[in-house]
Amino acid sequence: MMQIRQNVMETHRVVIVGGGFGGLNTAQSLRRTPVDVTLVDRRNFHLFQPLLYQVATGGLSPSNIAVPIRSIVRRQKNCRVLMSEVVDFDLNRRVVKLREGELPYDSLIVATGSQTGYFGHDDWRPRAPGLKSIEDALEIRRRILSVFEAAEQETNPVRRASLLTFVVVGGGPTGVELAGTLAEITRHTLRREFRRCRPEDARIIIVDLAPRLLGTFPEDLSADAERRLRLMQIEVRTGTTVQHLDQKTVVLQTGDLTETIAADTILWAAGVEASPLGKALANAASIELSRGGRIAVEPQLHLASYPEVFVIGDLALAMDLKGKPLPGVAPVAIQQGKYVANLIMARLRNRSLPAFRYFDYGNMATIGRSAAIAQLGSWKFRGRIAWLLWLFIHLMQIVRFENRILVLIQWGWNYLTFNRSARLITDTSNPRTDHESIFS
Amino acid sequence: MMQIRQNVMETHRVVIVGGGFGGLNTAQSLRRTPVDVTLVDRRNFHLFQPLLYQVATGGLSPSNIAVPIRSIVRRQKNCRVLMSEVVDFDLNRRVVKLREGELPYDSLIVATGSQTGYFGHDDWRPRAPGLKSIEDALEIRRRILSVFEAAEQETNPVRRASLLTFVVVGGGPTGVELAGTLAEITRHTLRREFRRCRPEDARIIIVDLAPRLLGTFPEDLSADAERRLRLMQIEVRTGTTVQHLDQKTVVLQTGDLTETIAADTILWAAGVEASPLGKALANAASIELSRGGRIAVEPQLHLASYPEVFVIGDLALAMDLKGKPLPGVAPVAIQQGKYVANLIMARLRNRSLPAFRYFDYGNMATIGRSAAIAQLGSWKFRGRIAWLLWLFIHLMQIVRFENRILVLIQWGWNYLTFNRSARLITDTSNPRTDHESIFS
Repeated sequence: MMQIRQNVMETHRVVIVGGGFGGLNTAQSLRRTPVDVTLVDRRNFHLFQPLLYQVATGGLSPSNIAVPIRSIVRRQKNCRVLMSEVVDFDLNRRVVKLREGELPYDSLIVATGSQTGYFGHDDWRPRAPGLKSIEDALEIRRRILSVFEAAEQETNPVRRASLLTFVVVGGGPTGVELAGTLAEITRHTLRREFRRCRPEDARIIIVDLAPRLLGTFPEDLSADAERRLRLMQIEVRTGTTVQHLDQKTVVLQTGDLTETIAADTILWAAGVEASPLGKALANAASIELSRGGRIAVEPQLHLASYPEVFVIGDLALAMDLKGKPLPGVAPVAIQQGKYVANLIMARLRNRSLPAFRYFDYGNMATIGRSAAIAQLGSWKFRGRIAWLLWLFIHLMQIVRFENRILVLIQWGWNYLTFNRSARLITDTSNPRTDHESIFS
Repeated sequence: MMQIRQNVMETHRVVIVGGGFGGLNTAQSLRRTPVDVTLVDRRNFHLFQPLLYQVATGGLSPSNIAVPIRSIVRRQKNCRVLMSEVVDFDLNRRVVKLREGELPYDSLIVATGSQTGYFGHDDWRPRAPGLKSIEDALEIRRRILSVFEAAEQETNPVRRASLLTFVVVGGGPTGVELAGTLAEITRHTLRREFRRCRPEDARIIIVDLAPRLLGTFPEDLSADAERRLRLMQIEVRTGTTVQHLDQKTVVLQTGDLTETIAADTILWAAGVEASPLGKALANAASIELSRGGRIAVEPQLHLASYPEVFVIGDLALAMDLKGKPLPGVAPVAIQQGKYVANLIMARLRNRSLPAFRYFDYGNMATIGRSAAIAQLGSWKFRGRIAWLLWLFIHLMQIVRFENRILVLIQWGWNYLTFNRSARLITDTSNPRTDHESIFS
C-alpha cells in the first residue's frame, strides 16, 4: 500500500531504448512534460542515416552526420542519457535489463531500428557489407578506395578489371545512391589521380530482383532514374537475383540466364531486418516476431498486452489506415516518436488519443550530381530541380545539427570541384597502430 | 655498355619513401624538374600532424587534417603515387623492395618519420597510447569520451574518481596541448551534458622528467605556460618520472617521493623514436643506427657511402652548423625536402650546393582557449596574441589543404560555443559491425 502510494507521488519514468530518429524525437517531444526521461543507446551519437552513403563514398566525414546524443539534449533537464547495452526486458516487473543493472520504467519505448538483412545468407555479410552504421560506411569507403590503389599496381589486366568492378545489390534509394556516387567518383573525382589504372573505366552494376529500380516510386520516375543511371554508364540488371557469392566472383541469374562476374567489391543494399533486440522483447511479451523480425503493434503503437510498452520505427510493424505495413523510413519513426510522446502526456491527464496516422509527405532518391527524383503528394520532380529539392530538404532535416553549415560547404566544394575530401583509408577491421607502422 | 648508355638516356628516377612533410615537399619541389618521381607511402593520405591533438580531443574530424596524397599531386605530371609497403632496400642494385616487387631508383629519399617511443617500456604502449597517427587519435578520443560515459553510470566514488583522472606523460608541446584541451573539454564542453558525474571535477596531471615544461622554449615563456595550466586546475609535476604502469594505476617518482595515482586514462607524449624502416636502411648501408634509431647523414643530407641516398625529417640525424642535432619538427623536414629537391636538380646540371642549413623561424605551443606561447626569433609572445599567431600560422601552413576553411569554421564554432562536434565513440580496436549491433 505504501509502495503504491509512493509510486503515484513519484514522477512518471519514461525509458527510451535507442537514440535514432524514433527514440530521439520521443525524448525531445517530452521536454515540457513532467516526466523523467532516460534515453539508452549503445552508441554515444545520433546518426543521420540518410547521408550515410556520403560517408561511404568519401564526401562527408562521420562527424558531419553524427552528433553526440548528450549534446542534442543537454538543455533538456528532464532527460538523462545512458550509453549502455540493453540485454533483456522484464515487462511484468517493468524493468529494462542493462549489462550493468536494471532500469525501472513506467512507460517504455523500444526503438532499436534495423540492420542489414541477407535473407538467410548471413555468410555473405563479410563479402558484401551493408550500409547501416558509421563502421559500415568506413569499411565500404576503405574497400572502394583500396581497390583503386591495388589496380594502380596490378599488371594483370584480368585482375585489374575485377578490381575495378563494383556490384551494388539492391535497387532501392540506398543502392541507387551508392551506384550513382560510385560513377561520379570514378568518372570524375579520381580521373586524373592515377597514372596506370583508369578509374573512369570502372564497371558499375546495379542489381535488383524487381522488374524496375526504385519500386516505391511511380513508374515514370523510376524509368527516368534508370535512364540517368545508364547515361552514367552504370549497368542496370533488373529482374535479377544473386545466386552465389565467393571471394572472387558473384553469380547473377536473370530468368534462365546465369552470369558470373569477377568483382572485388560487392555492396549490399538489398534489405533490412529488425534489430536483434526485438527477439528479446518478443520473448518477454510472449508474442511471435512478424516478418523481417518486426514486432506487431496496436494502432496506438503499443504492445497488445502491455499498453505501457511502445515499439516505434523500423522495429515496429505498424499498419496504415488501409491495413498496409508502414515503410521503414525516417519520417515514420519521427512521427511515431512525436505521437508516443503526445500519448504519454495525454495519459498523464487521463485522456487518450486517436490511433497513430502517418502523414506521407513524399519520397525522394538522389542519383548523382544534379540528378534525383522526387514525389511530393501528386507532384513529381526529376533532374536538377529534384536534386535541389533533395538537398534543401536534407539540409533542413539536419537543422538541429550544428554541422549543417559544414555539410553545405563540403557539398558546395565537392560539387564545384568534383573533389571528395574525406578519402582516408583507415583500417578499422585491422587497425594499424604506430607500433606496426612503417611510414609516419 | 649498351645498358649504361641506355640508362644515361633515360629520365632520372627519383623514389621517395614516405608522404609526410619531408617526402611531400621533396616531390612538390621537383615538379618542374625533368625527373620521374615515385612517391611511396603505406597510407593514402598526408597527415598534418601538428593538429592531430584536435582529432584526439574531438575538435576536428580526421579528414580535416588528412588529405589524399594523390589529390595533392594530381596535377604534377612527373609524379606517380604508390600506396605500398617498403620492406627493404638494396642500395648496391639501387632498388627499393616493396611487398609487391622492386622499384629501381637513381636518387632515393627516405622520409618515414618517427613513432611514439617508450624508452624500453614497449609493454606500456597499450596502456598509454601515443599520438602519431589518425588511428592513435581516434583511440585516444574513444578512451577520453568513454570514461565520462562510464563515470555517469558508476556509483562507487573511488572508481568514479579514477575514471575522471587523466595523466599526460610528457611536457612538450603535444603533452601541453593535450592537457590544456582536456581541461577545456571537462570544464566547459561536457559540463552540462551529464546528470550524475561532474566532468568539471576531472583531475588532469601533466608529468615531465625535466625541471620545467616546454624545455625548448625560453624560461619565462615556459613559466607563463605552466602558470596558465595551473590556472586551468591542471596539476603540473616536473622533475618527475613514471616508475610503473598497470591497468589501474600509475606510479610517479619525484625525487625521493613516490606517488601512486589511480587513473583510467594515461596518454603518452613523452618521446619519439625513428620509424623501424630505418633499421632496414642502416643494414642495407652497413652503418649503425644513432640514438633514437635515427640515421646519421652528411651535411648534404645523404648517406656517407651512398651520395644518391638521402634521409630527411624525423628519421635523419642531421646536425646544425654548431654540430647540434636538428629537432624532429615539421619545419626541418619541409626545408630538408626542398633542399634535397634542389640538390638533385643541381646534380643533373653537374653542379653542387652548399650544405643544408636550417632556418629556424621560431617555436610555438598552444595551451588552450586563447592561450599559447610563441618565440619568433628574438620576439616573444604569450596569451591571446600568441594564440592568434598560432592559429594564423597553422591555417597558413595547411593552405594547400582544401579543408582549411572547414577547419577555420569548426574552430570558430568551437571557440564561440565551447562545443566540440567530432565526439563520436567509434570502436576501432574492436569494431562493432551491424551483425553485433543492438541499437540502430
